[in-house]
Amino acid sequence: MATHRLVPRDYHNVLGTLPPVLSVASGDTVITETIDAAGYDKDGMQRARGPNPMNGPIFVEGAAPGDALRVDIVRMTPVSTTGWTRSALAANVVEPEAVRALPPRERATWLIDRQALTTRLQDPPKGLEYLTLPLEPMIGCFGVAPGQGQAISTATSGEYGGNMDYRLFGPGTSVWFPVSAEGALFFVGDCHATQGDGEIVGTGIETCFEVELTLSVEHRKLVWPRGETAEDIFPVGNARPLEQALQHATTEMLRWLAEDYGLDAVAASHLLGQVVRYDVGNVYDPAYTMACRVARKWLPPR
Amino acid sequence: MATHRLVPRDYHNVLGTLPPVLSVASGDTVITETIDAAGYDKDGMQRARGPNPMNGPIFVEGAAPGDALRVDIVRMTPVSTTGWTRSALAANVVEPEAVRALPPRERATWLIDRQALTTRLQDPPKGLEYLTLPLEPMIGCFGVAPGQGQAISTATSGEYGGNMDYRLFGPGTSVWFPVSAEGALFFVGDCHATQGDGEIVGTGIETCFEVELTLSVEHRKLVWPRGETAEDIFPVGNARPLEQALQHATTEMLRWLAEDYGLDAVAASHLLGQVVRYDVGNVYDPAYTMACRVARKWLPPR
Amino acid sequence: MATHRLVPRDYHNVLGTLPPVLSVASGDTVITETIDAAGYDKDGMQRARGPNPMNGPIFVEGAAPGDALRVDIVRMTPVSTTGWTRSALAANVVEPEAVRALPPRERATWLIDRQALTTRLQDPPKGLEYLTLPLEPMIGCFGVAPGQGQAISTATSGEYGGNMDYRLFGPGTSVWFPVSAEGALFFVGDCHATQGDGEIVGTGIETCFEVELTLSVEHRKLVWPRGETAEDIFPVGNARPLEQALQHATTEMLRWLAEDYGLDAVAASHLLGQVVRYDVGNVYDPAYTMACRVARKWLPPR
Amino acid sequence: MATHRLVPRDYHNVLGTLPPVLSVASGDTVITETIDAAGYDKDGMQRARGPNPMNGPIFVEGAAPGDALRVDIVRMTPVSTTGWTRSALAANVVEPEAVRALPPRERATWLIDRQALTTRLQDPPKGLEYLTLPLEPMIGCFGVAPGQGQAISTATSGEYGGNMDYRLFGPGTSVWFPVSAEGALFFVGDCHATQGDGEIVGTGIETCFEVELTLSVEHRKLVWPRGETAEDIFPVGNARPLEQALQHATTEMLRWLAEDYGLDAVAASHLLGQVVRYDVGNVYDPAYTMACRVARKWLPPR
Repeated sequence: MATHRLVPRDYHNVLGTLPPVLSVASGDTVITETIDAAGYDKDGMQRARGPNPMNGPIFVEGAAPGDALRVDIVRMTPVSTTGWTRSALAANVVEPEAVRALPPRERATWLIDRQALTTRLQDPPKGLEYLTLPLEPMIGCFGVAPGQGQAISTATSGEYGGNMDYRLFGPGTSVWFPVSAEGALFFVGDCHATQGDGEIVGTGIETCFEVELTLSVEHRKLVWPRGETAEDIFPVGNARPLEQALQHATTEMLRWLAEDYGLDAVAASHLLGQVVRYDVGNVYDPAYTMACRVARKWLPPR
Repeated sequence: MATHRLVPRDYHNVLGTLPPVLSVASGDTVITETIDAAGYDKDGMQRARGPNPMNGPIFVEGAAPGDALRVDIVRMTPVSTTGWTRSALAANVVEPEAVRALPPRERATWLIDRQALTTRLQDPPKGLEYLTLPLEPMIGCFGVAPGQGQAISTATSGEYGGNMDYRLFGPGTSVWFPVSAEGALFFVGDCHATQGDGEIVGTGIETCFEVELTLSVEHRKLVWPRGETAEDIFPVGNARPLEQALQHATTEMLRWLAEDYGLDAVAASHLLGQVVRYDVGNVYDPAYTMACRVARKWLPPR
Repeated sequence: MATHRLVPRDYHNVLGTLPPVLSVASGDTVITETIDAAGYDKDGMQRARGPNPMNGPIFVEGAAPGDALRVDIVRMTPVSTTGWTRSALAANVVEPEAVRALPPRERATWLIDRQALTTRLQDPPKGLEYLTLPLEPMIGCFGVAPGQGQAISTATSGEYGGNMDYRLFGPGTSVWFPVSAEGALFFVGDCHATQGDGEIVGTGIETCFEVELTLSVEHRKLVWPRGETAEDIFPVGNARPLEQALQHATTEMLRWLAEDYGLDAVAASHLLGQVVRYDVGNVYDPAYTMACRVARKWLPPR
Repeated sequence: MATHRLVPRDYHNVLGTLPPVLSVASGDTVITETIDAAGYDKDGMQRARGPNPMNGPIFVEGAAPGDALRVDIVRMTPVSTTGWTRSALAANVVEPEAVRALPPRERATWLIDRQALTTRLQDPPKGLEYLTLPLEPMIGCFGVAPGQGQAISTATSGEYGGNMDYRLFGPGTSVWFPVSAEGALFFVGDCHATQGDGEIVGTGIETCFEVELTLSVEHRKLVWPRGETAEDIFPVGNARPLEQALQHATTEMLRWLAEDYGLDAVAASHLLGQVVRYDVGNVYDPAYTMACRVARKWLPPR
């Protein structure tokens, strides 16, 4: 199992079937530094244009359409002393008539303390001077080349992953993506220092990270991305409206519970009905993201 | 502060401006036994028809339109040895084409251990024999008379509360409803032994409880219900689609953060953007329910 | 077949099981004058408060739950020289970020020429001086008492009818409502001089009409309202989001084509797939309205 | 103004920045034969795989990002004696619980009479033997390369056009697409012999046409496609849910009325409020399509 360091020369604003910049064996580890959602690196230099410039693609040997690419998020180390957000809620998360009263969406700077692993606003508005948040790093946008030779903007997401902006895509989480192209063609970028549910200001705290990921090919058939943490398992659905994202995630969970846990639709319904948790990944991007999450403690022994 | 025991003679399938069956002073406590969503009491006798027959209404002295009725959920004691659920996911929570493969929605019985405070299926399907869940009691349907003399089915919900089916409406939670009628006219029923997010089988574990509630009038203006637990504060929005419920809850949270915590829209946006949690109450009833939740630890000192 | 003239003494802001103000035999005709959506009569006197004060209810002898009430809209004669609208699009019909640029929603007066049967703005904005529209009278809000003893605001709509704001509910149209209460309890009001699809400024041209309606009981089972004109048949669905309204209307059309035209689901799919028209009634009220319309010329001979 | 005949050697299942197969001057006419949505030509030979294989792309000289590509649909001549549809409604157009009762979605053949310009089912189900429909040819999928180097499946649609499946994209209609790539890169295919609103069986009558189109570059800035017929003007919005498609179309119409007709937001609101028509293009594809249509007779003189 080799470890590779990927230093991108350029970046992509789509996930698509593009020439790979690195080829790795299944099980190898990749370390790479991501730039922020607007294309700025840790030194404040613009290296690419937004939205969400991607490192990659990485060709994973042996990955073929119908397989799953497993991505273990081993580590995310902040490499910048600042991050940024938007200063107002997105228009679509308040009542339509309330949009008239929303402030303009300006850029705000957050200071990142890489020792303490905390962050706070550089110029907090009145009443928010007290607020210091722990870093909860996460990957905003990652995934594989979509099917049919498509190349899809990093603004949005789909079965192949993409800009899902979901809090649980952080260190310790394993994620599976359905492979549609030879070599899977993995992309990653747009990391956040932290983010609330829904990404409702249109950003997390956008900054740069060194990420360490292990990429493996598995013979596992899935339609939507799936994730696992120490506590939970969760498929995600990406679509608008939110109800459709929920439908995709729930339908994928039914398949998962059947395949890996031997539960038919009645058993899965009983289980999900009483223990499921739904997490709103984002309600800002063109496709919203919803996770259907179940705690491992309620799952059947495998 | 008196304590009243309400033993209903009949039940209501609407929340509306109906003759009160009990009048209490602000700050009084009421103890009452609820029957299940289908109208059966703890002895299995049908006492009312569904959906969600309500105890009440209770007139709270001094409550006038424009006030808020505060409801402290002091205690919920299970009084039945069984509860019931539906055995299949609701059609609207899976992909439309996947509905064809859903099993029929039959009734399943859960056994309630009132000593251990746990519950398990009487006849678990294959693979689910292991599943025993802790009781996490919650009130499915409660609220006050809606405005304009309306009387609205206990199947649905609105600004006045109603059938919200949200997990956090359990013991230890305080809830505020906007008062639209003299005396507020409080209704309660449809309690669940536990329930997952979304009430996606169309039921929680439907059963009977003795509930103890304190009812108080507060001069506090709100549009949507608000709740507080030891850890969190959360307004809820009730509407379809899910995005609209989210918009109502978020807009109410903006008002709350301004009024009680002195945060303007920019400060509130910064706070919510990075710490908000959205909970799906139900995605089954005619109006869906979404809570916009913030942990107290991130709130400004009041 | 008698003709009754109903002169209301007061008006209702709900459709519900209220004491009837008139009782008629099946097949009788009722003539009544409606006031505008804000409660003003043809002389500009406020007679009730908004929204959408209703004349009625009218008890139709013999109507019982499970029946249908047929309403033939015989005539709508404008009785006022003015009407009014809002001067800006509703916030929910433009992109959320575009709401910031919408003008305030002020009241505008339209002059009604009762000879020419046309209407034009009293103070047209620059560039719109030329606009004179023909009157296309329609009933914004009408229906019967909803089920379960509910009383529901005239702001919204449901299976029982209500505030549907659909253009085709005008003279020459027959409408069927599912009866839920003894006597059906028919309500009517909120007439418009004309209205575009969607009622996207939140109003049609709101004014007063003398309406002449024939009310008949039919033994016909339906879930959602149905309408017929000389050219078309159309069920309507009332719900949010728009897709759900469309689903209700389409599902009701499947039932209708089966019952009255002998088409099974395959035959109905073939027919609807190639000839259906969907009309947006309103996208403004709490429940949106969508009609599923088929031209008679494509229907099987009955 | 030259006329070109394009005989494709291969077809594309995406709209993207691909090597052009033909280059034309602005104002030139192109005649080309399209194959059906599943990739079959007029002789029943499979020439490409689905969905919706495209002819093109055609490079239009002088077209640059920020321009509009005008497409005049001059003629659509049916070249096949058959077409096909699905035999059951799509699951998402009926109530979720009604999906259980839908028949399977099988393929049905329609006979096309190229003399009479009519079509009828080869094996009509009982009760539908009478049904013969006039041909109302339309282009299901056409448009230009999307921005940012994207390549997007012909299953869906966006600002660049794509699989909009809207009835009014037929002979006599002019359509404008916003150009994002040098030369615009125009694609066309997936023509229908006729189709109802919403494409609710998931197909129109899918068949092959010889289409004649004139392609011109205009210096006109637009965000969403716009169309004009002899009677109407209409922008279209492509998105889910239906309300968002409506919002895009309405917002584009506001821009159009301002730019070309001198109407500010108040004047445009007054006009649209009383005369707008909304057409459902499709409610089947990943992005739904809604047109915001106004009759020319109500427009200001230009």
